[in-house]
Amino acid sequence: MAYLLSDIASLVDGKIVGDPTLLIHGIASIECAKKGELTFVGSPSYHKKAIETQASVILSVKKIAGVQKTFLLVPNPYYAFARVLSYFHPPQQRVHGVNSRAVVGQHVLLGEGVSIGPCAIVEDGVQIGNRVWLSSGVFVGRGSVIGDDTQIYPNVSIYDGVKIGKRVIIHSGSVIGSDGFGFIRHESAEDAPPKHFKIPQVGGVIIEDDVELGANVTVDRATLGNTVIGEGTKVDNQVQIGHNVTIGPHTLLVAQVGISGSVTIGHHVTLAGQVGVVDHVQIGNNVIVGARSVVTKNIENNQKVIGFPPLPYNKGLAVLSSLEHLPEMRKKIKQLEGSKKVK
Amino acid sequence: MAYLLSDIASLVDGKIVGDPTLLIHGIASIECAKKGELTFVGSPSYHKKAIETQASVILSVKKIAGVQKTFLLVPNPYYAFARVLSYFHPPQQRVHGVNSRAVVGQHVLLGEGVSIGPCAIVEDGVQIGNRVWLSSGVFVGRGSVIGDDTQIYPNVSIYDGVKIGKRVIIHSGSVIGSDGFGFIRHESAEDAPPKHFKIPQVGGVIIEDDVELGANVTVDRATLGNTVIGEGTKVDNQVQIGHNVTIGPHTLLVAQVGISGSVTIGHHVTLAGQVGVVDHVQIGNNVIVGARSVVTKNIENNQKVIGFPPLPYNKGLAVLSSLEHLPEMRKKIKQLEGSKKVK
Amino acid sequence: MAYLLSDIASLVDGKIVGDPTLLIHGIASIECAKKGELTFVGSPSYHKKAIETQASVILSVKKIAGVQKTFLLVPNPYYAFARVLSYFHPPQQRVHGVNSRAVVGQHVLLGEGVSIGPCAIVEDGVQIGNRVWLSSGVFVGRGSVIGDDTQIYPNVSIYDGVKIGKRVIIHSGSVIGSDGFGFIRHESAEDAPPKHFKIPQVGGVIIEDDVELGANVTVDRATLGNTVIGEGTKVDNQVQIGHNVTIGPHTLLVAQVGISGSVTIGHHVTLAGQVGVVDHVQIGNNVIVGARSVVTKNIENNQKVIGFPPLPYNKGLAVLSSLEHLPEMRKKIKQLEGSKKVK
Repeated sequence: MAYLLSDIASLVDGKIVGDPTLLIHGIASIECAKKGELTFVGSPSYHKKAIETQASVILSVKKIAGVQKTFLLVPNPYYAFARVLSYFHPPQQRVHGVNSRAVVGQHVLLGEGVSIGPCAIVEDGVQIGNRVWLSSGVFVGRGSVIGDDTQIYPNVSIYDGVKIGKRVIIHSGSVIGSDGFGFIRHESAEDAPPKHFKIPQVGGVIIEDDVELGANVTVDRATLGNTVIGEGTKVDNQVQIGHNVTIGPHTLLVAQVGISGSVTIGHHVTLAGQVGVVDHVQIGNNVIVGARSVVTKNIENNQKVIGFPPLPYNKGLAVLSSLEHLPEMRKKIKQLEGSKKVK
Repeated sequence: MAYLLSDIASLVDGKIVGDPTLLIHGIASIECAKKGELTFVGSPSYHKKAIETQASVILSVKKIAGVQKTFLLVPNPYYAFARVLSYFHPPQQRVHGVNSRAVVGQHVLLGEGVSIGPCAIVEDGVQIGNRVWLSSGVFVGRGSVIGDDTQIYPNVSIYDGVKIGKRVIIHSGSVIGSDGFGFIRHESAEDAPPKHFKIPQVGGVIIEDDVELGANVTVDRATLGNTVIGEGTKVDNQVQIGHNVTIGPHTLLVAQVGISGSVTIGHHVTLAGQVGVVDHVQIGNNVIVGARSVVTKNIENNQKVIGFPPLPYNKGLAVLSSLEHLPEMRKKIKQLEGSKKVK
Repeated sequence: MAYLLSDIASLVDGKIVGDPTLLIHGIASIECAKKGELTFVGSPSYHKKAIETQASVILSVKKIAGVQKTFLLVPNPYYAFARVLSYFHPPQQRVHGVNSRAVVGQHVLLGEGVSIGPCAIVEDGVQIGNRVWLSSGVFVGRGSVIGDDTQIYPNVSIYDGVKIGKRVIIHSGSVIGSDGFGFIRHESAEDAPPKHFKIPQVGGVIIEDDVELGANVTVDRATLGNTVIGEGTKVDNQVQIGHNVTIGPHTLLVAQVGISGSVTIGHHVTLAGQVGVVDHVQIGNNVIVGARSVVTKNIENNQKVIGFPPLPYNKGLAVLSSLEHLPEMRKKIKQLEGSKKVK
C-alpha cells in the first residue's frame, strides 16, 4: 500500500514543497518514521526532531529552517495527519448479515447492510439502521433504536428503550440504560431498621449522532424524562454518567470522570481525567475543568477551572503548588506568635 | 392507563384534600407535569413551582398556601411518589423458561418460574431460586447459589461458589467473585529480579437479600472466608469492593467508590461518590463520608466526615473553603516575617 | 484432604520445630484457624494472637516465646503461606476442548489441551497456545495471539491484533485493545461549530508473560506502535491504561488507577489505589506512589511520593496532616496582621 504524495496533498488541501511524485508507504511519529514515510510537526518544540527524523515528508504549517525534506504545508498539521492516517487505514470490512448464532427477536426492523455477530441478542421491537454493526455478545433490549452506521463493540449492554443516533461508536463493556441510583430511605415496621425503597427508573437514554463512548462506560437511564448525550460528544473509558444528566454537543469527558444525577453540561466542554461533578450542578459552554477536580457548584460559560472546590485555573494551580509549604507555614505562624508574646 | 385518586390515596395511606374521583394518567416532575398528572413537593423550596405546575394533584406534607390544586397529604411525599411510580410502572413481564440458546450444566437446581436468556451460561451444580431472571450473556460459575426473585441483567459474570440472596438486582457488566488483589513479593533465583507470587483466593462472596449492585461493579472473593455485602445495601455503578470486605445492611455506596481489602463497614452508612477506603479500616454504623474523601483510619459510629484524611464534616468543609486562600496566606506570612526583621 | 507436615516442610524448604508427622487438614488466618490447621505469623504484632490461636502449626521466622505449638520456620512466612495455600488449592480442572456452542473462525491455530467455553468467540486468524482457557462469552478479535497457559475469565473482550503472553490471567469484564481517546478539534464549515475528528487508533497492545489483569480493567490500543504491559506486572480491578502507555515488568497497579496516554512506567513500581497519572509523564523504577496521588511530572528511580502534585512521602504526609489546621492558620494570620497594625 503506497500513495502518491500529490494524492495525499489533494486529500488534505496541502501545498507540496518538494517532489509531488514521491510514493508514501506509511505514517509514523517523528521518532519512528522511516524513509518513504510521512510524519508531522505540530509545534516548534519538535523542530530539533524534524532535523533528525528519517521521514521523507513532513506535514507542517511552514518549512522548517535547516530541514532538507519534502514538506506538505497545511494550516492544521495534526488534523491533516489524522486524516491521512484514516486514508491509510480505512474502516475494516465487516461480514454483512445476521450471524446464525445471533438471536433476533420479533418485530425487529433491520436496515440494509447490517452486521450482527454471533451471540449478539436483539430483543423484540428493536429498530436497527443501515450498515449498523453489532459485534459478538452485544445485547440490545426491547424497543431500542440504533441509527445508521453505528458500531457497537463486543459485550456492550443496551437496556430497553434506549435511543442511539447515527455514526455512534460504543466500545466493549459499556452499559447504556441501567437504573439510576435512586432510593428513598423510609421507616418500615416499628421495630425494623430504616430501609431504602427503590425509586423506579422509568425514563430513557438518548445518545445523539456522532457520539463515541469508550470501554466500560456506564450511562444510567433517567428516573423520568431522559439522560442525554449531545451530538459529537466523546467519552473516554470508565466514565460514569448518572440519571437525568444532560450533556451538550462536542464535549469531551476524559477517563474515569463521574457525573452525578441531574447535572447539566454545555457544549464544547472538557472534563479532564477523574473529575467528579456533584448532583444538580450546571456547567456552562466552553468550560474546561482540570484533572481530578470536584465540581461542587455551577460554572459559567468560558471558564477554565481546577480544584475541589473549583477555582479559576491559575489560582487553582497556585493552590496546588502552595500545598507543599503548608507544614512550614504552620511552623512560621507559631514562631511569629511566639515572638509577639515575648515582646 | 389511569387510576382513581382515591385508589392511589389508599396505596400510600394519604389524605385527599379535593376531589377523590379525579383520574390520574401519569406521574411527572413538578416542572414537566401536565393536567391529569400527579407530582410531589418534598421541600418548601418548591412552593413557587407548586404554584406554577400544571399537575392536577400534589403529594405534599400539608396544603400549600396559594395553590388551587387537589392535594394528597402524606408524611413522606418523596417516598409516596416512589410508591405511586412503582404502581404505574409494574415490573416488566419476563418470558419464563430456559431459552434454547442458554447453556445449563449438570446437577443444576432450577426453581419455578425461572427465566434464563439466550447465551446465558449456568455451570454445573448451580442452584437457582424461584422466579429468578438471568438475562442474556450472564455467566454463573460452578456451585453458585441465587435466591428467589433475583434479577441479573445482561453480561454479568458471577464466578464459582458465590452466594446471592433473594430479591437481589445486579446490573450489566458487574463481576462478582473475581480474585482479590493478593500477591507476595519474593526473591526468586539469585540473579533474577523480585517477582509477585499469586496468593490463591479461595474464599467466597456472600450477597445478602435485597442488595442492588449497579453497572460495572466489581466484588472480589475473599482470600479465605468471605467478602460480604449486607442485606438491603445499595451499590452504585463502577464501585470496587476488595477481598474480605464486610459491609453491613442498608448501606449506600455511591458511584466510583473504591474499598480496599479487609475493610469493615457498618449498617446505614453512606459513602458518597469517588470515596476511597484504605485497607483494614473499620467504619462504624450510621456514618456519612463526603464525596471524594479518603478514609485512612477507623471512624466511630454516627460520625459525618469529609476529607483526606477525613475530618468532622464542618471542619472538613472549612478546610476545603480555606484552600483558595493558601497562596495569599503564604505571602502574608512572608510580609509578617519581613516586618519583624525590619524592626 | 490432609498432608503430612514433613511434606509441607519440603515444599517450602522449612525447618520443623516439633512433630513432623502431624497431619495438616487446612490453612486459615490466625484468628480462624482450628486444631489440625496451619497458620502464619508475619510480624511481631501478631505474637499475642499466636498465643491464642487454635492452629496446630505456625509458619514463622523463628520460635515465638510462650507459644507451645509446632513451628515451621522459614525466612518469608507469608510467601510460604501462599505456597502452601496453592498446594491445598490446586488449579481447577477445566473441561478441555472447544465447546459446541463456541464460535471459532477460519485459520485459527489452536494449541494442545485448549478449553473454549460456550458463547466464546474466536475470530479469524487468531493463534491460541497450549492449555489456554477461554471461558464463556470471551471475545478474541482477528489476528490476536494468546500464549500458553493463559486463562481468560467470562465476558472479557479482546480486540483485533492484541498480543498476550504466557501464563497471563485476565478477569471478567476487562477490555483489551479498545481505541485510545484521540481526537483533534477542527473547524468544519464556516458557520458550523468546531468538531472532534477521530484519530484512527491503528497500533496494538502487548501483554507480556505472567501479567494478571483484574476485573473491568481497560487497556487501550496505541495510536501507532504499541501499548505495553511488562512481564509479571499485576493490575487490580477497574484500572484504566491509556494508549501508548508502556509499563515495565513486576509493577503493581492498585484498583481504580488511571494512566493517561503515552505515560512510561518503570519496573517494580507500585501505584496505590485511585492514583492518576497525566499524559506523557515518565515514572522511574522502584517508585512507590501513595493512594489518590496525581502524578503531574516525571519521577526519578527509587522515589516514594504522595500527593497532587506528588511530594516526597514524609513531606506529603505532613501536608495531609497539616490540612486540618488551615482555617485556624488563616485566623491566626489575621490576628497577627491586626496586632501589627494596632502598634
